[in-house]
Amino acid sequence: MTITTEPLTAAAFAPFGDVLDCSGDPDKLINAGRCGRWHDRARLDFDVLGHGGISLFRSDAASLPLELTLLERHPLGSQAFIPMTPDPFLVVVAADRDGTPDDIRAFITAPGQGVNIGRNVWHGVLTPLAPPGLFAVVDRIGPGVNLEEHHLPQPRMIVRG
Amino acid sequence: MTITTEPLTAAAFAPFGDVLDCSGDPDKLINAGRCGRWHDRARLDFDVLGHGGISLFRSDAASLPLELTLLERHPLGSQAFIPMTPDPFLVVVAADRDGTPDDIRAFITAPGQGVNIGRNVWHGVLTPLAPPGLFAVVDRIGPGVNLEEHHLPQPRMIVRG
Repeated sequence: MTITTEPLTAAAFAPFGDVLDCSGDPDKLINAGRCGRWHDRARLDFDVLGHGGISLFRSDAASLPLELTLLERHPLGSQAFIPMTPDPFLVVVAADRDGTPDDIRAFITAPGQGVNIGRNVWHGVLTPLAPPGLFAVVDRIGPGVNLEEHHLPQPRMIVRG
Repeated sequence: MTITTEPLTAAAFAPFGDVLDCSGDPDKLINAGRCGRWHDRARLDFDVLGHGGISLFRSDAASLPLELTLLERHPLGSQAFIPMTPDPFLVVVAADRDGTPDDIRAFITAPGQGVNIGRNVWHGVLTPLAPPGLFAVVDRIGPGVNLEEHHLPQPRMIVRG
């Protein structure tokens, strides 16, 4: 019943969303060659009544092993988490089977990595692994109910891989 | 001819855009009270042919005093810079007078501060003051010419305040 953490890679995370980092060559050099631009790396996806916005999240930090009891998803939009420190955070995601989460995965970020979680993808709540737990979040702003929660019938333990 | 840096505050920066930080109380507590949300803090502003996207920038770092020779602006959209480290960066902005920058100001960020620079606001290029100079940038993606540059007839020296 344990879930073992994995390093966050674009390939492993592809079914769930985008890894936001500077891997590979930049798409463009700007500012007289002093700055690389890795262009348009997140598949932002918001319903027609909503739009993207930038919010700040500051969360208590957690540590591993960690008991997982809740997953959630946002039917109306994608949600990007951009860490404002180099500290790692835990990214829990899952496939969907008939409306409930299945095949839960847990990733640990490296410094300089954020994620964009796809619309309606099951995921755990924001889980920094060190203070101050500070993130910029690009998600859907607008009317309507954009949260579905699933409480696991049996808690799962996440252990460091 | 020198420009002296100022601390970045929302009040001082208001004519130019938004400071993205966790000042004041959160608008909402989420995740069973473990996380604060400072909601929708950036006035994203993109023309109808464009849309917002997330890119990563990694820039060489600079140090003060610094010679300023160039300002630029983006007529088609706002541009947010979210630092992915707690290191300070320099934010140079200016008013507009008849199509050229006027009354140049220079701000130094505190840890946990990003900025959203308003559409068509004159600003300096991204200037981290420490490596690795890593930022997430939320700006306008789309067709058309979204860059106007202004080379200062006389360079200005930016000095630490």
